[in-house]
Amino acid sequence: MGSLPDCIRTLIILPKEMKKYHVAIVGATGLQGQECINILEQRKFPAASLRLFSSDKASGRKVFVSHREMAVYEPSSQAFDYANIAFFLEGAGTSTHYAPLAVQAGALVVDTSSAFRLDPWVPLVVPEVNLRDAAKHKGVISTPSSGVIPLVMVLHALNKRSRIKRVVVNSFHSVSGSGARAMEELTTQSKLAIEGKAVAPHIYPHQIAFNLLPEVDVFMDDGYTREEWKIGQETRKILHVDDLPISATAVRTPVYIGNSLAVNLEFASSLSREDARGILAEAPGIKVQDDPTVSLYPQPWSAARTDEVFVGRIRKDTSCDNGLALWIVTDNLRKGAALNAIQIAEAMLRNDSTP
Amino acid sequence: MGSLPDCIRTLIILPKEMKKYHVAIVGATGLQGQECINILEQRKFPAASLRLFSSDKASGRKVFVSHREMAVYEPSSQAFDYANIAFFLEGAGTSTHYAPLAVQAGALVVDTSSAFRLDPWVPLVVPEVNLRDAAKHKGVISTPSSGVIPLVMVLHALNKRSRIKRVVVNSFHSVSGSGARAMEELTTQSKLAIEGKAVAPHIYPHQIAFNLLPEVDVFMDDGYTREEWKIGQETRKILHVDDLPISATAVRTPVYIGNSLAVNLEFASSLSREDARGILAEAPGIKVQDDPTVSLYPQPWSAARTDEVFVGRIRKDTSCDNGLALWIVTDNLRKGAALNAIQIAEAMLRNDSTP
Repeated sequence: MGSLPDCIRTLIILPKEMKKYHVAIVGATGLQGQECINILEQRKFPAASLRLFSSDKASGRKVFVSHREMAVYEPSSQAFDYANIAFFLEGAGTSTHYAPLAVQAGALVVDTSSAFRLDPWVPLVVPEVNLRDAAKHKGVISTPSSGVIPLVMVLHALNKRSRIKRVVVNSFHSVSGSGARAMEELTTQSKLAIEGKAVAPHIYPHQIAFNLLPEVDVFMDDGYTREEWKIGQETRKILHVDDLPISATAVRTPVYIGNSLAVNLEFASSLSREDARGILAEAPGIKVQDDPTVSLYPQPWSAARTDEVFVGRIRKDTSCDNGLALWIVTDNLRKGAALNAIQIAEAMLRNDSTP
Repeated sequence: MGSLPDCIRTLIILPKEMKKYHVAIVGATGLQGQECINILEQRKFPAASLRLFSSDKASGRKVFVSHREMAVYEPSSQAFDYANIAFFLEGAGTSTHYAPLAVQAGALVVDTSSAFRLDPWVPLVVPEVNLRDAAKHKGVISTPSSGVIPLVMVLHALNKRSRIKRVVVNSFHSVSGSGARAMEELTTQSKLAIEGKAVAPHIYPHQIAFNLLPEVDVFMDDGYTREEWKIGQETRKILHVDDLPISATAVRTPVYIGNSLAVNLEFASSLSREDARGILAEAPGIKVQDDPTVSLYPQPWSAARTDEVFVGRIRKDTSCDNGLALWIVTDNLRKGAALNAIQIAEAMLRNDSTP
């Protein structure tokens, strides 16, 4: 957990007369950072200026933005002097170290790392679910881990109709969640395995090509991984249901992009397939893909590089009285990370009522 | 469902004085059939003769057995005249058509297809769990689908200590469950996808390389696939618990061999991680691989071409009072199919008390 400096700014003031904002991206050379740059362009984010940072020395010092080469700097204590908004998309270490400096410099930090997510004074926000929490920020707003974002969007929509009593979730993680080198490793290992050659794992403890590894993040004493534990903790924090029972199993899969979830939900009262489908079809940010007659259901390959949370395989959970089973897929780099961060920033700008 | 002929043999009598048995393998050119031939050799099955059959004309008419080429015949009404034991490892269509002929000819049929599994007069057997059911056979003994075999072995072992009240299972299927052409398709698609080329699916409705497809077998009206439905039906039949609540989600994964299961179990009374680990370590056919400190857990890549049911990630299910979560992996062609069939045959021979 990172801690914010004592001189916490109670509210970041974004000057309205500017109408455009000075933006800093930390982690610009990584997969999330690249996606962040793409999305800012695609959504015509009102950026007066863009400064790129990366603490990863190995990943190069230049990236392309709108086909133009831009320098990437190492973050420093002066780095954020002109920033109104700083997106942190690297890792918990970088955020813990530099986010407080950005806040001190007057920037609003939107952080996709796990550094501050469970800190009580940091809002953990999915705009479609709990945007009002963002208003209470003290300089930093965190975005949840990639699997939690689609999960809470679905839970939030359904929970309005019938209270959710229990959640069992199997989370299937793509290798892009571990960065570009993990994607390269999947390619290299796949080629070797196809040729019948031995595979030496580097990023993961074992071969990931044509394999499944039930290990995402580090193991804890109770046998759960930190990723599985986070799914429960973050979901409860976002939904403001401290005692919601959740059990998760997180599995790394040989998939480049896309986080898939197999979810079993137990409700306080009955909720039919048709009602659930209708509720989800209306929910913001969610797209229902559910027509078994034509093999229509969410898939990571087709969800990659899109913005929606796709939901399908909606059916009664036959193992309990008021249950539903569903299958959810999202691009873990976009809605699972960079897009969610940018949506938070956009919402904060919309609410920017300073003179 | 296939139906057995009227002249059902009440008991197949295997002549003891022979000590060796005439064996027929139907589906000898398929993945399960090849594995069956390998395992019969490895286990020195007491075969007086071996005749190979396949109704798949496209798959060739010769296979290697002990480095010797053997002819493969089309099954016919006379095919089983000399057989004492006939292993059926092709598909439900072939079994439905030819298994009754083999029974009429006097052979004991052990069938890995779904043709007869849920017929009330056909025992559905995993030797470690319900071998006594096999004694009631009327010519045909079925083996369960590949995911059910490891599942019931684990449930049976734990259920002895504390009654299982509810099962939620996520089943991750390898492509070898769909045959050799599906394995080739995974290779072809993986190469194309790595080169950035378009992939045309043939075996599955969508690309399987670097993707996940929550569709195994056909869809039913209630939104479940037939595979998911079978997991419930077969598990209840084998464990003789007609009302055991089970919900399954079956997902095809880009894995060549190995069926993985993420299982959440609810018990009538508390069962600790340590007790569960101890019970499973003692259970026949099960090997516990569960040491998070060295990333030891079951994986399909390492379970392929082995005989055990591997269990790991054993931990409390944090979403209910008396729950456990586990991760189970098995070779779907061996213990998930051919090996289980051969173990049934071996057990029947051991019990062969005819003069």
